[in-house]
Amino acid sequence: MKLNIALLAGDGIGPEVIDQAVKVSDAIAQKFGHEITWKPALTGAAAIDAVGEPYPDSTHEVCKNADAVLFGAIGHPKYDNDPSAPVRPEQGLLKMRKALGLFANVRPTFTFPSLLDKSPLKRERIEGTDLVFLRELTGGIYFGEKGRKDNGDTAYDNCVYTRAEVQRLAKKGFELAMTRSKKLCCVDKANVLETSRLWRETVQAMEKDYPEVEVSYEFVDAVAMRLVQWPNSYDVLITENLFGDILTDEASVISGSMGLMPSASMGAEVSLFEPIHGSYPQATGLNIANPMATVLSAAMMFENFGLMEEGKAMRDAVNKALEAGVVTEDLANGGKAYGTKEVGDWLAANI
Amino acid sequence: MKLNIALLAGDGIGPEVIDQAVKVSDAIAQKFGHEITWKPALTGAAAIDAVGEPYPDSTHEVCKNADAVLFGAIGHPKYDNDPSAPVRPEQGLLKMRKALGLFANVRPTFTFPSLLDKSPLKRERIEGTDLVFLRELTGGIYFGEKGRKDNGDTAYDNCVYTRAEVQRLAKKGFELAMTRSKKLCCVDKANVLETSRLWRETVQAMEKDYPEVEVSYEFVDAVAMRLVQWPNSYDVLITENLFGDILTDEASVISGSMGLMPSASMGAEVSLFEPIHGSYPQATGLNIANPMATVLSAAMMFENFGLMEEGKAMRDAVNKALEAGVVTEDLANGGKAYGTKEVGDWLAANI
Ligand SMILES: CC(C)[C@H](C(=O)O)[C@@H](O)C(=O)O
Ligand SMILES: CC(C)[C@H](C(=O)O)[C@@H](O)C(=O)O
Repeated sequence: MKLNIALLAGDGIGPEVIDQAVKVSDAIAQKFGHEITWKPALTGAAAIDAVGEPYPDSTHEVCKNADAVLFGAIGHPKYDNDPSAPVRPEQGLLKMRKALGLFANVRPTFTFPSLLDKSPLKRERIEGTDLVFLRELTGGIYFGEKGRKDNGDTAYDNCVYTRAEVQRLAKKGFELAMTRSKKLCCVDKANVLETSRLWRETVQAMEKDYPEVEVSYEFVDAVAMRLVQWPNSYDVLITENLFGDILTDEASVISGSMGLMPSASMGAEVSLFEPIHGSYPQATGLNIANPMATVLSAAMMFENFGLMEEGKAMRDAVNKALEAGVVTEDLANGGKAYGTKEVGDWLAANI
Repeated sequence: MKLNIALLAGDGIGPEVIDQAVKVSDAIAQKFGHEITWKPALTGAAAIDAVGEPYPDSTHEVCKNADAVLFGAIGHPKYDNDPSAPVRPEQGLLKMRKALGLFANVRPTFTFPSLLDKSPLKRERIEGTDLVFLRELTGGIYFGEKGRKDNGDTAYDNCVYTRAEVQRLAKKGFELAMTRSKKLCCVDKANVLETSRLWRETVQAMEKDYPEVEVSYEFVDAVAMRLVQWPNSYDVLITENLFGDILTDEASVISGSMGLMPSASMGAEVSLFEPIHGSYPQATGLNIANPMATVLSAAMMFENFGLMEEGKAMRDAVNKALEAGVVTEDLANGGKAYGTKEVGDWLAANI
């Protein structure tokens, strides 16, 4: 296969972890006979510094014409203390999601047996957890009309959803559930919100098309509880943008493997793959960041092209490294810590 | 003191746990020389069955003219599966909050040493947790304009906040922080929402009036994570209605003491006190429900009247019962389980 991949390394540790994912992906390409052309482009604070905005048109051109986007991380402390500043890395993120139509954010949370002790939860609560959130990413209160009235003394944000937006996301959820345990949970606040009632009735109407999928409906506050109590009772969960923002982050810390969690944001034409961790500015350039989440994101990318064996080879390499203790200091547990680059080299050599 | 207390027992186990709180409160009144007049009124499914609506005007009259409201629980399975049904117990709850102006929901989460093992979190994560959420309760997306367009295919919910609403809630937060460790966390999503930016700028402007309080600002997704990782790093948290709904429920399960957590909803004129647990329909009438959260809610009520010693006497009785193993089956751990009524009798006798 010939693949054109847009490479958005971003800020902080982004470039370092992206380098390792490129290295491991190139090893995959060589082994399986693919040809990858990497197209680097600016984003985040790096792009603001260079051209004055976090998601420049030139970057959009690169992404739009790529087969997929591999993304590092964005964010820089100099933008952290003024959320109302006109130019911020996050604005670039939202603009990119909308412009590329990345409507479905896929966020798995699973456990690695060797990392269970890192979980804040007791072992018996977290063991066996393997769930996936599908978060709607281009609608809802993030993108509705917002502003001020009464000389700035009244603020408003409008949350809007159309039936088509819900159907598009829910379809992905049903399809994903069919490839897993056929359990789907629709998370909403239908006892209060009209948008949630639209979500619920739309999903209910789709149930007949997937008779094998067992669908449950839970309120967002109840899910926020059960995720901590019995995370392993969930499989596939679908939800709207803001609920997804909160719940996927909550889910990410329960496994003890947050530093290893990949994600995908799927669009109709192009999809984007990125680790869920941030840009860890303090670690920049120190060769200590864990590249595994980015490597696993690249694995999701291969699998999304239908290259399942390739994805599996990358996952296997990560598992092998974990077992062999070839890990960065966050996972070293007092033992020997390898550098970012050395872990990348080891993974590439073990493909 | 002469106290007129509206008594809204509600549904399921509500009446049983309320009975115990009344009993223990009466023991307090006798010991400290107060006179309590209880004014029962209908609410929830019980009110729908009797008069067709969950918060009838007659109940509102009773609450409005009372010094405080003691509330049990509402909700019944027959209303659970159709969130768009026109008459539901929850509608009564929202109507009551708005009509009584209960703008500040006070939700503490703390641990009881004897219950630490019930927490889903590891002991070292949860030990020492003692935090309070102040959730705004009468504004935001719960009460903004909502509806449908495009023949029902588009739904919207409007989230609105005024500076005055934020100030009123934040003032309570600063004041509460002053009586505790002087740490206040404002939870928002100011990197995306205009209402959150209003929250943040309003709280920032109030900082100068409370120079001793150390204020931090955190995004709601980050708080959803840190609540699971390091709950004991928080003290007082203030937030808007929907974020508060999700985060207070998340917080409630981490302590292992969910069944014991009280809450208060404060208004300008009257305030309401209730356990955070639900109406557990399955347990109705079985004399197995744990009345302690309701008794602790009554303790909050006394403290809110400035009757600190009275509140402390009730808390002490609960602690003593926990130590003595005078508990309902949820806390019995295989040991002897007492009935709802017997626990209430014991608490009253130990005032
Ligand atoms: C940075 C922020 C705008 C973003 C979001 O809320 O979507 C982030 O929290 C995420 O989840 O990707
Ligand atoms: C029943 C529901 C409307 C209510 C809310 O969301 O406020 C409940 O979850 C609560 O937190 O008291």
